[in-house]
Parts: sequence; C-alpha cells; structure tokens
Amino acid sequence: MKKILDNPMSVANDALEGMVLSSPDVLRRIPGRRIVLRKDAPIKGKVTLVSGAGSGHEPGHVGYVGRGMLDAAAMGDVFSAPATGDVLTAIQSADGGLGVLLVLPNYGGDVLNFSLAERKSREAGIHAEHVLVNDDVAIKERSRRRGVGAAIFVEKIAGAFAERGRGGTTSLVDVKRTAETVVSNSGSMGVALAPCTIPAVGRPTFAIPEDELELGIGIHGEPGVERVKMMTADAISEYLVGRIAEDLHLASGDRAAVMARGMGGTSNMEKFIFYRDVCRHLVSRGIVPANSFVGEYTASMEMEGVHLTLLRLSDELKGLLEDPTEAPAWHSWS
Amino acid sequence: MKKILDNPMSVANDALEGMVLSSPDVLRRIPGRRIVLRKDAPIKGKVTLVSGAGSGHEPGHVGYVGRGMLDAAAMGDVFSAPATGDVLTAIQSADGGLGVLLVLPNYGGDVLNFSLAERKSREAGIHAEHVLVNDDVAIKERSRRRGVGAAIFVEKIAGAFAERGRGGTTSLVDVKRTAETVVSNSGSMGVALAPCTIPAVGRPTFAIPEDELELGIGIHGEPGVERVKMMTADAISEYLVGRIAEDLHLASGDRAAVMARGMGGTSNMEKFIFYRDVCRHLVSRGIVPANSFVGEYTASMEMEGVHLTLLRLSDELKGLLEDPTEAPAWHSWS
Repeated sequence: MKKILDNPMSVANDALEGMVLSSPDVLRRIPGRRIVLRKDAPIKGKVTLVSGAGSGHEPGHVGYVGRGMLDAAAMGDVFSAPATGDVLTAIQSADGGLGVLLVLPNYGGDVLNFSLAERKSREAGIHAEHVLVNDDVAIKERSRRRGVGAAIFVEKIAGAFAERGRGGTTSLVDVKRTAETVVSNSGSMGVALAPCTIPAVGRPTFAIPEDELELGIGIHGEPGVERVKMMTADAISEYLVGRIAEDLHLASGDRAAVMARGMGGTSNMEKFIFYRDVCRHLVSRGIVPANSFVGEYTASMEMEGVHLTLLRLSDELKGLLEDPTEAPAWHSWS
Repeated sequence: MKKILDNPMSVANDALEGMVLSSPDVLRRIPGRRIVLRKDAPIKGKVTLVSGAGSGHEPGHVGYVGRGMLDAAAMGDVFSAPATGDVLTAIQSADGGLGVLLVLPNYGGDVLNFSLAERKSREAGIHAEHVLVNDDVAIKERSRRRGVGAAIFVEKIAGAFAERGRGGTTSLVDVKRTAETVVSNSGSMGVALAPCTIPAVGRPTFAIPEDELELGIGIHGEPGVERVKMMTADAISEYLVGRIAEDLHLASGDRAAVMARGMGGTSNMEKFIFYRDVCRHLVSRGIVPANSFVGEYTASMEMEGVHLTLLRLSDELKGLLEDPTEAPAWHSWS
C-alpha cells in the first residue's frame, strides 16, 4: 500500500481535521469527536438535517455541512458506520427545536446505529425522523438497495427546503416528504475498473483482470453484482442510462439532474468523457440533462470507476437544487 | 491501459466537449476548435485574459473560463501545447478592445506557440502581452522553472482585477503588473507516487517501486528531479513547505494562500490529510494559512501524488482572491 498518510489507524480523524481546517468559516468540530456542525448551529426555527456515514467517501458528508444543506454530520471509521453516540450528539447539538431529519443511506451498520440514535433522541425529547436513501438500481429489491449518489441530492434539496422555511413556516413532516420525493425520483448505478485499499487492512478490496469491469458496485470498495469484459465510455454510459431510465420510467420530455461521479482514482478527463456520453444517451431518449454535476461527491477512496445518479426534476426540485448553499463541497464541478 | 474513454486519439476533444456541455450557461466553444470562451465574450471595456495548455490537466484551464477569471482558453492534445492558430483565434475572439493578457505557464511548447500567437495578434492590431508563470521551486534557475499551480492563482487574481476595472478604468499594463505580483509571490513543489498513462501512448510515463517517491515533479507525467524512499504525509508536507517557504522568504506573520492539489489519482482522503499536515508546518513557522484550496485544479490525468502551491498574500491579493467568479472549477474544494 502506497498512500499519502501518517497513520493507517487514524486516517478518518486526520482527513476530517483537514476538512474542518480548510473551511473554518463554515464548519465547526465537536472537539475529540468525529462530529462536524455548521458553525452557527443550532439554528432556531429551522428543521434540522443530520447525516453521516463511514469515512473514505470524502468530500461526503462533511463537505455537505453548511447553510442550505446539512446542519451536522457524524463520521465513522473508513467504510464503517458512525457510532450511535456520535449520531445522537450530532442530533442534540444541531437541533433547532423543530425536529431533526436523519438522511440515512441504506447500509446495514448505518441503519442500525442511526435508528438507535433516532430512538434515543426521541426518548430525550427531540423529535427525530429519518429518510432512507436506497437509489442503487443494480439491486432489484427496493428494500435491499444501497444508498449512493442520491444522498447528496437529498441533502441539497431537503436542506434548501428547510432553509427556505426558516422562521417556522416549514415542519419536519414537510421536509421529510420533500426528501422522500427526491429518493423516489432518483436512481444510481456504477462500475469499477480497479479496487481501493483500506489503510488499516493494507491490501486491495478485490482483484480484477486488466480487461474486465465490475458492474453494479456500491461505494465501500466492494465488487459489483456482475463482472463483464471492459467496455468503452460510450457503452458504459448507454448501459447505465438504460438501467436507471427504465427503473425510474424516465420518458421523453423528462428533465433530469445528472451526477457523473468518479469513484476517487479516476481522472477528471475520464469523468468528462463519461459525462459527455451520458448526455448523448439521455438526449437520444428525449431526456433533458437539465442540471449537471461532474466530480466525486461521495467517493470510495482511490477506487477507479464511475457512478451515475439521475434525478427526475419537477420545477420545485430544480429550484431547490439551484438554491445557494455554503456547504464547501457543493458545486457543479466538484 | 484501462481507462474510461472511447478513442485514445480523441480524448482531448471528448473531455472538452463534456466540460462545455456541463456548463452551458458559462462556456461556449468555437465549433470544431479546441477553444472555449466565456459565453458573453468579448467584453467591451475590459482587459481580456486568455490562457491554455495541453489537455490532461482537467479541470484546468477550461474550468477557469468565466466572469472573474479567463475570457478564453485554447487547449492542445494531451500534454501538448495548443496550436498557435487556436491561441490566435482565442485572442481575436475574446478581445474586448483594451488588449489581451496571455497567462503562459513556462513549458517549451507553450512558450513557443503562445509567443508566436502574441506576435501575430499584434501584427493584426490587437495589443497582446504575456505573463510567464514559473513557480516550480524544484528547479533552481528561475528562467527554467515550470509553471504549475500558480497559473490558477494568476487567472483568479488578475481575472478579478480586470473584472473590477471593467468600464475602462484598468489598463493592460495594470493587469499584467498584478499578474506578475502573483507570480513573484508564488512557489510550488510536488511529489508523485505513481505515473500516469497518456491514452495515445498506452503505457505509464515511468516506473517506480512500491517504496519510493518522485520529488519535484512537473504536471506532464514526468518523473521528479530526485527519487527518494517513501515518506509520510507529515514528512512530505514538512519538506515541501520548507522548500517553498525558503524560496519565497516567507517569514513569521506572513499570510499565505494554500493550494493542496492532488495529481488526479490520489483520493480526497489523502488530500485532506496532506492539507492538514501542510497547515501544521506553516503554523509552526508562524505563517498563517489564510485561504485554502484543496482539490485538483490542474491535474496530470490519473497520476498519484500531491502538489503544493503557496502564495504570499497582501490585503489586495487576498481581496481579489475572494472576489466572486462564475468559472465552473473555481472553488475552495475542487
């Protein structure tokens, strides 16, 4: 393993420290904990949004903390759920009195720890609810689908909705409904060309020949649901657009937000070629790529590959997506 | 070679097409040419900024076209200078009547083609000047130093200065002087852990053992000026901060803008660990990391490694650095 790091056991902490140091005007850390709050939290009279996940997905989710997106994020070790106590402290520290929505990507450990924190926060008198993000169309059964790129769209859109309703005009129920609308209109799927290496483990998460591709990967270094021969960017795009468009029943005339994500080790040149080809295949189906996002957003460390998320847009969702935010990692090119 | 692409011979064109497609409100391409203009160019009554380089450095320089940064960029093949004719057309298409400043990173082919275009544009009646960016402190002799991360700071700061002076209050001479101030207060140096592969070549640009590091790399896939044993992020940061701080005579109390750049294949987790360690070593010298930029900015395709640029800040430079811009790739986290 050849990486730029100091101690394989403390990478989650060290990277989080770097992220907070780089955005001192927006982010604040609870000392000694892997919990990051927007600097001015708690915001009285605003529904609060909290998320979190394992580390290794940088810039997610710490980079999505800030006015207009998350109020707090709790981070775990590499690819491991945040501790229940950290999620609970994030909820208690960020709550502005109108309740807390947990943005919860569907992974076993995260569901367990977030659910427990949600129950405990209710016992402590804070009204918490969650939205389960399960947008990975590589898996047929909806309840088993992993949460991938759509979590970022949920954080942006529900975050903007909560921010607009600051002053008490928007309730937790409304914010949750908006978040659920994003999930039900989102689909994602990705491919990997090469695995990543978890620093504490020190060896790649899987092996794959030079002429093969993993189809239907998650974002935790795992292989996909199928291994196929290497494909061109055009063929990859056509396949992913097809799978997602069919799952979402995207029809000619629909507008979609497009998130073309690199998995961490893939060059920007490749991401932009991929994005171009995705646009072609959307347009050939009559679907309008209305808002574009090319970057990493939620990576798998240095894994090589790309992931695509499509979100069917209404006027309302498009407006919320375009609202300003101070979250340091939210950009069209990330 | 395992990459997400369609045709190894057309990657520069295909990625450029993706970049323009993703930012249709900001960018406009001259059809059939690898020239990108800000959509509303030419801007009458504003000094014009034009840059360019080989491809493979995405998001640079196309991503730095937009209000507040560049008016146009001309792009070459992978790691090859843009054609003289393209630079000339970029100048002629973007000129707003007050003259054109060429932001020219110091590489042989770029210097040749930009200089020729500069001369031809003068012959055609457009006043063009250039600023040579040569910030790579790995090379002792200033005239031989390569242009690396400082080019992005020049584009941002001189671009903001030109934008402020819109309406004719600022001349080409003033903009050039500001750009030169950025160059003379900037220094950069980087390391590589692994090479990259130029698609048309199909094999890595060099080979390096698992326990070694290239010190003092450029941004064209070349090896460094010295090969050493692998180092921790802390040791790399200490070394790079030391070399640049000494070259720039940075003293206790100085403020610096910090650009901690990944070379393309390095994970965000590693970039943030590197940034954290850079901050530590700046602070231990009494230097204040005042503005931070963690991302890629100008990559070497999927090369693994990091590059550091420091810019000594005056109040004026800091203000210009913080001015708003519409360039799609300019962010604190890129």
